[in-house]
Amino acid sequence: MTSTDLHDSPALIALDWGTSSLRAYALGAGGRVLASRRSEHGIMHLPAVTSNLVADRFEAALQSVCGAWLQEHPDVPLLACGMVGSAQGWKDAAYQPLPSRAADLSHAFTVVPRGSGPSLHIVPGLIQRGDLPNVMRGEETQIAGVLQSLAPNGDALQRMVIGLPGTHSKWALVEDGSITRFETFMTGEVFAAFCQHTLLGRTMAINAAFDEAAFTRGLRVARSPEGAMGVLSNVFSCRTLGLTGSLPSTSQPDYLSGLLIGHEVAALAGALLGDGLRVVLCGEPSLCQRYAAALEVHGQDSPLIRSEVTPLGLWSIAQAGGLI
Amino acid sequence: MTSTDLHDSPALIALDWGTSSLRAYALGAGGRVLASRRSEHGIMHLPAVTSNLVADRFEAALQSVCGAWLQEHPDVPLLACGMVGSAQGWKDAAYQPLPSRAADLSHAFTVVPRGSGPSLHIVPGLIQRGDLPNVMRGEETQIAGVLQSLAPNGDALQRMVIGLPGTHSKWALVEDGSITRFETFMTGEVFAAFCQHTLLGRTMAINAAFDEAAFTRGLRVARSPEGAMGVLSNVFSCRTLGLTGSLPSTSQPDYLSGLLIGHEVAALAGALLGDGLRVVLCGEPSLCQRYAAALEVHGQDSPLIRSEVTPLGLWSIAQAGGLI
Repeated sequence: MTSTDLHDSPALIALDWGTSSLRAYALGAGGRVLASRRSEHGIMHLPAVTSNLVADRFEAALQSVCGAWLQEHPDVPLLACGMVGSAQGWKDAAYQPLPSRAADLSHAFTVVPRGSGPSLHIVPGLIQRGDLPNVMRGEETQIAGVLQSLAPNGDALQRMVIGLPGTHSKWALVEDGSITRFETFMTGEVFAAFCQHTLLGRTMAINAAFDEAAFTRGLRVARSPEGAMGVLSNVFSCRTLGLTGSLPSTSQPDYLSGLLIGHEVAALAGALLGDGLRVVLCGEPSLCQRYAAALEVHGQDSPLIRSEVTPLGLWSIAQAGGLI
Repeated sequence: MTSTDLHDSPALIALDWGTSSLRAYALGAGGRVLASRRSEHGIMHLPAVTSNLVADRFEAALQSVCGAWLQEHPDVPLLACGMVGSAQGWKDAAYQPLPSRAADLSHAFTVVPRGSGPSLHIVPGLIQRGDLPNVMRGEETQIAGVLQSLAPNGDALQRMVIGLPGTHSKWALVEDGSITRFETFMTGEVFAAFCQHTLLGRTMAINAAFDEAAFTRGLRVARSPEGAMGVLSNVFSCRTLGLTGSLPSTSQPDYLSGLLIGHEVAALAGALLGDGLRVVLCGEPSLCQRYAAALEVHGQDSPLIRSEVTPLGLWSIAQAGGLI
């Protein structure tokens, strides 16, 4: 439990600045969160300013979320990650190539001067080049946070896969503390589009309670011989099982969720996951539990689960870069 | 070229009555289209009537599209297919099981009395039972039409796969004139949802001209080793290829189309298509051309292409049922 008021001197102000929200953390020794604040001023929802200059709008957002901290502690360094470093952000923080570890990220900070105050440093995103390039922005910092959380046990240098389920899931292979490969799945966004904007949504009833049986049924279909027909075909069963009376409206959302997550994990099982390879999931806990169940259906060991690691990731990157 | 006015005596009034439109055909000897009319009165857009009775709304729709024909030829039989036979239609025409041929469909007409005029007969849909049931309604009539179109050459009894690309694509295995298996892919609807309701749409520019190179690129990705990561992962490349400057905004829609159609055909190639098995595509000609290109990438022979076969299908089913 952290407060929004800051009583101790922070060593770093860490910013998780995405499209739809901005979270600020005042971090003390060891990356401990002394205080945190959240605002709706994601990069697509910046406050209006009289000058109408984009930089002024970003500064106003920053002031609105942690102006009091900055005033009381004018010399504290600032480090941000996320879409604030995109082409639509405060300043474009160019993607860095793989392999990459926290120290590599810290050598490529993009610096945004802020007049009289300390500059804002922005963590770069990562790019995996190839026929089908892949990018992440913000998740590289979460991965650094996961690794930092494993460091006290000496486990950060193990070969592992770190999964970050969400709107766009990211799955990274980490070897010797370095991200060597990653994949993206648009599963969360596709699920929402299916529910809200296709025929499948019309027969669905949103059920507050998690229908585990329906979810597991979807997972198993994705792994069954019928799963080989693929997502575009399998999802129609959401409707036909409803039509034939074997999948109530209230079960359809979780069945569809199981189908999609099942297909995601099936593809990973064939490509990235391996026997005995440790899997760490990081994200919203109930979503991580769904992915843990999918991994189990695919014969994987139970994953470790982490959440809220972005401040720790920013701390470790700031340390690697000598910012603190 | 058919007119909307009817000069000759029809043998059958054939109705293709779907969710969003109603097409009426006056058919003469051999199923020749003497006249045709189209209205927006699909089952979800029926005209208002003073009685507010559902049956009266369907009758009003029928009268609005071909009332003049019915008045001049009061004894002509009426046969309809499509969503008019669904639970939301005029009368529920229960799904019939597989295997099924045109004659089987005609033995299961649902009859809707229409007061003084001749009854409306409705063709049933088809159901494939199993762990993942499958249904079609309207497409069984298109398949009958395709087979009827092949009959003069004696090809209707060949083993073949008939593909009906569209919002929900259907692919049916036909053996000895009988539908023995079919699959559904929601490709068309998923494509629209991706373009209109996900991040991918935001960087797309709709291009009136078909970008064949981008489409073929999508087809090849779906068939490449990267394709094994599946649709949920591959579609993100639409964005990353754009970010890295190798896929212009105007190319992104056709690239995505190629990816999705490529995944559909890849799944079919592993399940339903086979060496030397004839494929017939039926649907909107430019969409059929996309699927023909996808089949070619998967090493299949050139398919036959048909379109506008629903009146012929209704004719052949009416004949099989002794309605004419």
